[in-house]
Amino acid sequence: MQDLKIPERLLLGPGPSNVPELVRQAMARPMIGHLDPAFLSILDEIQEMLRQLFRTSAALTLPISGTGSAGMETCLVNLLEPGDTALVGVNGVFGERMISIVERLGARALRCEAEMGEIIPETHFIDAIRAQRPDLVALVHAETSTGVAQPVREIAHAAREVGALVVLDCVTSLSGMDVRFDEWAIDAAYAGTQKCLSCPPGLSPTAFGPRALERIERRGRPVQSWYLDLSLIGRYFGKERVYHHTAPVSMLYALHTGLRLVLEEGLEARFERHRRAHALLVERVEELGFRMLVNRDHRLPMLNAVIPPFDDEASVRRRLLTEYGIEVGPGLGKLAGRIWRIGLMGENARPEVVERLIDALRAEARTH
Amino acid sequence: MQDLKIPERLLLGPGPSNVPELVRQAMARPMIGHLDPAFLSILDEIQEMLRQLFRTSAALTLPISGTGSAGMETCLVNLLEPGDTALVGVNGVFGERMISIVERLGARALRCEAEMGEIIPETHFIDAIRAQRPDLVALVHAETSTGVAQPVREIAHAAREVGALVVLDCVTSLSGMDVRFDEWAIDAAYAGTQKCLSCPPGLSPTAFGPRALERIERRGRPVQSWYLDLSLIGRYFGKERVYHHTAPVSMLYALHTGLRLVLEEGLEARFERHRRAHALLVERVEELGFRMLVNRDHRLPMLNAVIPPFDDEASVRRRLLTEYGIEVGPGLGKLAGRIWRIGLMGENARPEVVERLIDALRAEARTH
Repeated sequence: MQDLKIPERLLLGPGPSNVPELVRQAMARPMIGHLDPAFLSILDEIQEMLRQLFRTSAALTLPISGTGSAGMETCLVNLLEPGDTALVGVNGVFGERMISIVERLGARALRCEAEMGEIIPETHFIDAIRAQRPDLVALVHAETSTGVAQPVREIAHAAREVGALVVLDCVTSLSGMDVRFDEWAIDAAYAGTQKCLSCPPGLSPTAFGPRALERIERRGRPVQSWYLDLSLIGRYFGKERVYHHTAPVSMLYALHTGLRLVLEEGLEARFERHRRAHALLVERVEELGFRMLVNRDHRLPMLNAVIPPFDDEASVRRRLLTEYGIEVGPGLGKLAGRIWRIGLMGENARPEVVERLIDALRAEARTH
Repeated sequence: MQDLKIPERLLLGPGPSNVPELVRQAMARPMIGHLDPAFLSILDEIQEMLRQLFRTSAALTLPISGTGSAGMETCLVNLLEPGDTALVGVNGVFGERMISIVERLGARALRCEAEMGEIIPETHFIDAIRAQRPDLVALVHAETSTGVAQPVREIAHAAREVGALVVLDCVTSLSGMDVRFDEWAIDAAYAGTQKCLSCPPGLSPTAFGPRALERIERRGRPVQSWYLDLSLIGRYFGKERVYHHTAPVSMLYALHTGLRLVLEEGLEARFERHRRAHALLVERVEELGFRMLVNRDHRLPMLNAVIPPFDDEASVRRRLLTEYGIEVGPGLGKLAGRIWRIGLMGENARPEVVERLIDALRAEARTH
């Protein structure tokens, strides 16, 4: 067996995005134990930096030892019990994934739907909350399958009014656009590391507010998943430091470094960088005959769903990868074959990155 | 927030163990997409190398995107349904963990027990299998909480005779001692990366034989966990390459490199190196007045449960860490405060490593 063969890629798909040298080098640092005082300090600092990213003072923040989907599952299986009712916003693949998790755990899943590429209108969602009075409301802030930015605040406040817990998917939004855990009245949120944080995939930063933790305390039966049982995981991240599973040490080195880079840049500056790269991309791809899938008011900055102006989208995408070293994402679900998903996440939300993609698309148009 | 402060440690606890430079540098390599053809080749090679480690020709091998405990949960939740019966060998913390997972998923857990520090006698286990005729038999090959090497082959064959599936915990044994998936009649097995593989923690290499896969096909209801649903994960690792969750790319670079180093050394040579380091350790610590917890015939080479000859074991352990940079593990569960767990895993199974620990213990004895 030979050494790894890893081509250089500019990663402009739905994630992973490119990881800066400093974060990659952090993973090459020497291993230490998961109960070493030096490592526990690193965990404390990660938890503190996550509080800043989620803009929360009271929530328990911690990275789950799995990808964003493990974070999704952690939130839902800890906050729901069989027989509970969850109202889930579904306008893309990740809302559907929540439905699947809710049903698997034996809770009742109600859907509040919209077409892929559209938001779920706030009035519609709020009416459903008031009519159904669910135990939990779950929605996706940044739908990675469609590039839609879902309004959250009014929906979350309406959920709190009927006593429902609110779970927010921030996998693609965290550190690329504003997420306000406390102010929006979110009870549990999860993110991914491989999107706007520009870290490798493998961890899911999460936040659990006081109402969520109280709900977990009141559970009548244990969480089905031992691995994702927050009452056990929380004892490792809390004062007691009780061993649960061996923390993924190197990935946490990477997350610590990635979070530090985000906070050094500043959240507002980072959001603005994402907005500018997005605006430039829209301008440039429209010049090339692409159309945007999503209405101007509801577009994510970091994930751009574009309708390419050619029939053989798959072969152009393949040539972008093999000839230019640029990855863009295909459509998912009903949008497969119809759209591309162009990610400008974290380190890649820069004008020179946009121009490199546009140059490749122009060259490709000349050749074929 | 400052850069990571990571002290140099010699990791002689129950894992993580030290990670060689080549593996750490692999994680620093550039990111690529989880559906990039170059990455899919890396996955294929990992699967092939895992088949060699597990000594299996027919099994589906793949790394689960979580630690060893996630591998444990994956095996049990995919192979059991509510109402099924599982007979679990319990002579330590990790057997207990299996019981907890079996009960949480709604299956009936039967225990076949022995004291911590002893094996579960084969005749005892086989009698229980024949009397109970469970749907599944689960046991721990290398009990990391006690240092006991559990005999497996006769028990697994007896289980197959009554039609039970066999799940084997190889978290600490894989690549440090012989694991023969096909020959022993194992149906599902899981390991960890941070033990004898000398990779960072965060992945669980698993193997699923034909009978296990057939059982999953026949399931009456979906697996409770979406994240650990093997029928979905298998479609990403199979020919279809259907997106499930974003693979932890950098960790898989590390695993690929770690597996390559294991196979370059050769399994038999690696096992022999573990046996020799273990024999030297036993000789040296007995000279210093330590006693071995486990009977000579049932000791693991890579995890040594020793009874220290002093009352203040915690303070000596703490000084080993802070003054000498050496981590040894404390006892778990009923053995807390009574034993140390000295790991000689993977890269650390070497005479010079043993001597460094012994030198530190001698210096400590002179000082205090």
